[in-house]
Amino acid sequence: MKLAVVGAAGRMGQTLIRAIHATPGANLAGAVERPGSPHIGRDAGELAGIGPINVPVTEDALSVFVQVEGVLDFTAPSATVEFAELAAQARIVHVIGTTGCSAEDDAKIRAAARHAVVIKSGNMSLGVNLLGVLVKQAAKALGADDFDIEILEMHHKHKVDAPSGTALLLGQAAAEGRDIALGQHSVRVRDGHTGPREDGTIGFATLRGGSVVGDHSVILAGQGERITLSHQAEDRTIFARGAVKAALWGRSAKPGLYSMLDVLGLADQN
Amino acid sequence: MKLAVVGAAGRMGQTLIRAIHATPGANLAGAVERPGSPHIGRDAGELAGIGPINVPVTEDALSVFVQVEGVLDFTAPSATVEFAELAAQARIVHVIGTTGCSAEDDAKIRAAARHAVVIKSGNMSLGVNLLGVLVKQAAKALGADDFDIEILEMHHKHKVDAPSGTALLLGQAAAEGRDIALGQHSVRVRDGHTGPREDGTIGFATLRGGSVVGDHSVILAGQGERITLSHQAEDRTIFARGAVKAALWGRSAKPGLYSMLDVLGLADQN
Amino acid sequence: MKLAVVGAAGRMGQTLIRAIHATPGANLAGAVERPGSPHIGRDAGELAGIGPINVPVTEDALSVFVQVEGVLDFTAPSATVEFAELAAQARIVHVIGTTGCSAEDDAKIRAAARHAVVIKSGNMSLGVNLLGVLVKQAAKALGADDFDIEILEMHHKHKVDAPSGTALLLGQAAAEGRDIALGQHSVRVRDGHTGPREDGTIGFATLRGGSVVGDHSVILAGQGERITLSHQAEDRTIFARGAVKAALWGRSAKPGLYSMLDVLGLADQN
Amino acid sequence: MKLAVVGAAGRMGQTLIRAIHATPGANLAGAVERPGSPHIGRDAGELAGIGPINVPVTEDALSVFVQVEGVLDFTAPSATVEFAELAAQARIVHVIGTTGCSAEDDAKIRAAARHAVVIKSGNMSLGVNLLGVLVKQAAKALGADDFDIEILEMHHKHKVDAPSGTALLLGQAAAEGRDIALGQHSVRVRDGHTGPREDGTIGFATLRGGSVVGDHSVILAGQGERITLSHQAEDRTIFARGAVKAALWGRSAKPGLYSMLDVLGLADQN
Repeated sequence: MKLAVVGAAGRMGQTLIRAIHATPGANLAGAVERPGSPHIGRDAGELAGIGPINVPVTEDALSVFVQVEGVLDFTAPSATVEFAELAAQARIVHVIGTTGCSAEDDAKIRAAARHAVVIKSGNMSLGVNLLGVLVKQAAKALGADDFDIEILEMHHKHKVDAPSGTALLLGQAAAEGRDIALGQHSVRVRDGHTGPREDGTIGFATLRGGSVVGDHSVILAGQGERITLSHQAEDRTIFARGAVKAALWGRSAKPGLYSMLDVLGLADQN
Repeated sequence: MKLAVVGAAGRMGQTLIRAIHATPGANLAGAVERPGSPHIGRDAGELAGIGPINVPVTEDALSVFVQVEGVLDFTAPSATVEFAELAAQARIVHVIGTTGCSAEDDAKIRAAARHAVVIKSGNMSLGVNLLGVLVKQAAKALGADDFDIEILEMHHKHKVDAPSGTALLLGQAAAEGRDIALGQHSVRVRDGHTGPREDGTIGFATLRGGSVVGDHSVILAGQGERITLSHQAEDRTIFARGAVKAALWGRSAKPGLYSMLDVLGLADQN
Repeated sequence: MKLAVVGAAGRMGQTLIRAIHATPGANLAGAVERPGSPHIGRDAGELAGIGPINVPVTEDALSVFVQVEGVLDFTAPSATVEFAELAAQARIVHVIGTTGCSAEDDAKIRAAARHAVVIKSGNMSLGVNLLGVLVKQAAKALGADDFDIEILEMHHKHKVDAPSGTALLLGQAAAEGRDIALGQHSVRVRDGHTGPREDGTIGFATLRGGSVVGDHSVILAGQGERITLSHQAEDRTIFARGAVKAALWGRSAKPGLYSMLDVLGLADQN
Repeated sequence: MKLAVVGAAGRMGQTLIRAIHATPGANLAGAVERPGSPHIGRDAGELAGIGPINVPVTEDALSVFVQVEGVLDFTAPSATVEFAELAAQARIVHVIGTTGCSAEDDAKIRAAARHAVVIKSGNMSLGVNLLGVLVKQAAKALGADDFDIEILEMHHKHKVDAPSGTALLLGQAAAEGRDIALGQHSVRVRDGHTGPREDGTIGFATLRGGSVVGDHSVILAGQGERITLSHQAEDRTIFARGAVKAALWGRSAKPGLYSMLDVLGLADQN
C-alpha cells in the first residue's frame, strides 16, 4: 500500500516514516510539509534516519494524495481539516492521530468521511484501544456493589499534567461500563483523613519519574480478589505502528468514519 | 433465597455456609452430609463458626431440597450426579463447583438440567471467569504475528502440580481466541539454549512460594507495548461467594445448563 | 519459650495467641485482660478459636509475668507503660507493637529497658522492616539527580487515611537515605497541571479498594531503568508472627531497647 | 573528564559516545577502532548520530590514551587485555564491560590494575548491581525456613537462552546471602507433578515475548507476606551510562581493580 505522511519532518512524522518502512506491505510514496518548511525538497528517508528512499518532501499535498492510497496525519486540527478535504477528493484512506479537534473540526472530518475512509483516534496504540474495550466490559460485569475501580498511571518526570489523557480515557471506559458519568464519580486525589472509600467511585493515582513512556493499570478490587488490566508502552513507535495498521485495514473498508476499535474488530463489543 | 449446602461439614461446605450467611438476600435453610457422618444432627452454623442458626445437619437430601430454592454443591462427582437428580425433582437451582466429572457424569447433569437450573463451573470465582473472557478477546484481537502470549502463575509452596488448572484454563481461553489447539502450541518450560521464541506459541511460567492463594497473569507482548491481564485471589472465600451469586442469578433463569459466564452476562461475548 | 499475651481478648490479642500456638518453641502460658473485662476467667485458647489450652484469662498481670519469659503487647500507650514496668520487675522480654506512644511514654519504656529486653516497633512484620532497610540503602546509592523516588500503596476500602503509616515509614527511610527531611520534600497529591517533576522530591500515590490487606511499593525511576521494592501483606497474622519471632530473639539478648531491625540482624546496616 | 571509547564504531561504541555526550562533566576526546576498520578517519560524533564533534576515529590507541583520563571498553577479551596494558601505561581509568574473559585474561587485567584504576563488571547498569546487593541482604535476613526465593525474568522474543545471565547473577546473590551453592539448590523448571516446593531451593521462571529489554524480579515469599525486588530496563543505554559513571568515579580512586559495587559505594555491604 502506497502511503503518504503529512508533517513529515516533525518528530512524529519521522517516526511514521520509519514505521511505514518497517511494515511489510506498506511503503512511503509521498511526504508533505507545510509551505515554507526548510525541509522541502529533502529526501524523506534521510530526514527519518533510514537513508535515502527517493521521496522528496513537498508542500503540494494534493499532488501527493492522488498518487497514494492513504495518508497518515498527526499534525494539528486546522491542517487536519484541510487534509481531510483533499484526502476525500483523492478518495484515499485518511488516518488521523491529531488531537484537540473542536466539534466544528470533527463535523468537517465527518463530512469528508462520506467520500473516503477516515480512521480517527486519540490513541493509535493497539494495546490501549483494546484495553479500553476490556475495561468497559469488566466494569460492566463486576458491579459497583462488589468491585472498586482504581486507575493507576506512571509517566516520565517531564510530564506536566495528571492524570494522563489515557488514564482518563480508561476511566471513561470504566464509567461507560458502569453507566455513570465519570466527572461525578471520579476521586482524583487522596490525602489525610479521607474516610472510607465511597462505593461506585473511580479513583485515580499518579506516579511520575525517570523516563517511563507510559504505564496504565485499571484495578477492579473486590472482596477477596482483584483483577488488574494493564498496558505498558515501551517506546513511542507503537502509535505510528497503529496508524500504519489502520491504513492497511482501511484500504478494504467502505467510506465512513472509523476508530481504532473498528480496526481491531472490537467496535461491536464496545 | 433459601439455600442448602451439601457436604456441609467439609472445609468448602463450611466456607459456603459462611458465604451464604454474609450475603444479603440469601439464607441457609438446609445442610446435608453423607449418611454416617459424625456431624449429622449438629447445628450447621456452629460447625461453620458463625454461631447457632437452628439448621441441623441431616443426611436426607430430598427432604431438604423440597424446602429450599437452591443447593450449593462442591462435593465429588458421584454425589453430585445424585444431587442433580434430586434437585431436578425438587425443581431447585443446583450450583455445581465439583471438579473431575466424567463425560458420563456430565451427561447425567445435562439431563437433570432439562428440568431445573444447573450452573456448573470449574472455577466459581467471578474474577477468573471474567478474566478468561477478556483473555480470549485479547488473544483474538492481537494476532500471533504481532503479540506473544505468556501465562504466569504463582501459588503457595504446598501446591504439587504445575502449571495450575486455572493457568491452563486461561491458556485454553487464549488458544480459543487464536483458534488454535493449546496442546500443540504450548511451551511449558524453558531452560538452557532455547533458541528464539516461536511465533504463535503460548508460554507458561510457574512460581511457587509462601502462602500465595493464587495469582495469574496473561501477558500479550508486542513490539513496543505489553498488555497484562491479571487475577489475584486473596482468600478462598471467593469461590464460595461466586457460588452464592450464581444461585441468586439462577432463581430467575429458565431450566438449563449454565456456566459462570451466563451469571456474569458474558456468555454471548465468549 | 513461655509467653504471655496482654489484651488477650481483643482482635490482635487473639491473633497473637494463635501465632504463639503455631510457632514451634513458643507456648502460651498466660493471658491478661483489663480489670472488669467480661472475658476474665475464660480459656484463652477457646477465645482465640484454637480449643481449650488450660490458660485462663486473668487481670493480674504481675502474677502472670513472673511465670513467663516474655510478653506480647499490642494494647494502648497507657497500658503499655504500666506493662513495661511490670515486665522490667519480672525481668522478662517485652515485645511492644503498640502505636501512638508519646515522647513521655517512650521515656518510661526506655527506663524499663535498663532492666529487661524491650523490643518495640510500629510495624512488626519482618518484610516491611527489611524493606525499610533496603529502601534507605537504595535511596542512598541512587542519588536524586538520577533517580526519582515514588511510593505507592494500596489498602482495603475501609481504610480512612492516606497515605498509610507504612508508606510514610518507607518514605522516611528513603528520606534518611537521601539525608533530607521527608516533610519538606514529599509530594502528596498530583492533579491537573502539575508542571514537571521536581528533582529530589518523594512522591506518594494511594489506591483504595476491595479487601487488600496492604501492598506497598517504592519505585526508584531513572533514565532508562527502574527499581521497584515491594511488600505485600496477605493477612494480618504477619504482625503477630513478627512479635513472636521478636520474643524468641529477645530471650538471648541483654537488657536494652531494641527494634525489629535488631531482630533481623540489620540494625548496623541501617 | 576527557574520555575515549574503543570499538567506537560498533553498536555499543556508538551508544557509549552518545552517553558521554549527554553526561555533564564528561566529554569525548578520543575514538579508537581496530586497524583496517572502514570507519578510521570518520568523525566519531557523526558516526554516533550526534553531529560532528571533531574527534576522528583512529587505530592508534596509545596516542589516544595519553591524551585522555579514561577509556570505555565493551569490546572482546583479546582486545580488552591489550587495552588494559596500554591504559596502565597511560595511567588512565579503564572501564571494562567486556564479557567472556578467561581466567588468564582476568589475571592480565588484574596485573594492569596494579598501575591504574580498572573497573570491570558483567553488567554495568546501576540498577541491577544495586539490586544484587539488596537481594543478597534480603536472602540473608529472611531465612530458608520462612521464605522461599523465586526469580522471574522476561526478555524479548529473540533471546535464545534461559534463564538470563542477570537472573543467574541475582540467583547467585541470593545463594550467597543464604550461604549455599546456587547450582545445588536451583530449580530451573516446573512442569506436571512437581510435589511440594522443597525448602531452601531457589526457583527460576522465564517469560519471553515482544520487545522487552529486560525485567527481573526476585520474590521472597513467606507465610502471609511477600517481598519483591525488581529491576526493569527500559532501554540499552543504561549500560553505557553506568560505564560513564564508573569512569567519573574512577578518576579519584587509587589504582586497583574495582566493580560497579565500588562505584555505588556498596562493596562493603556486599
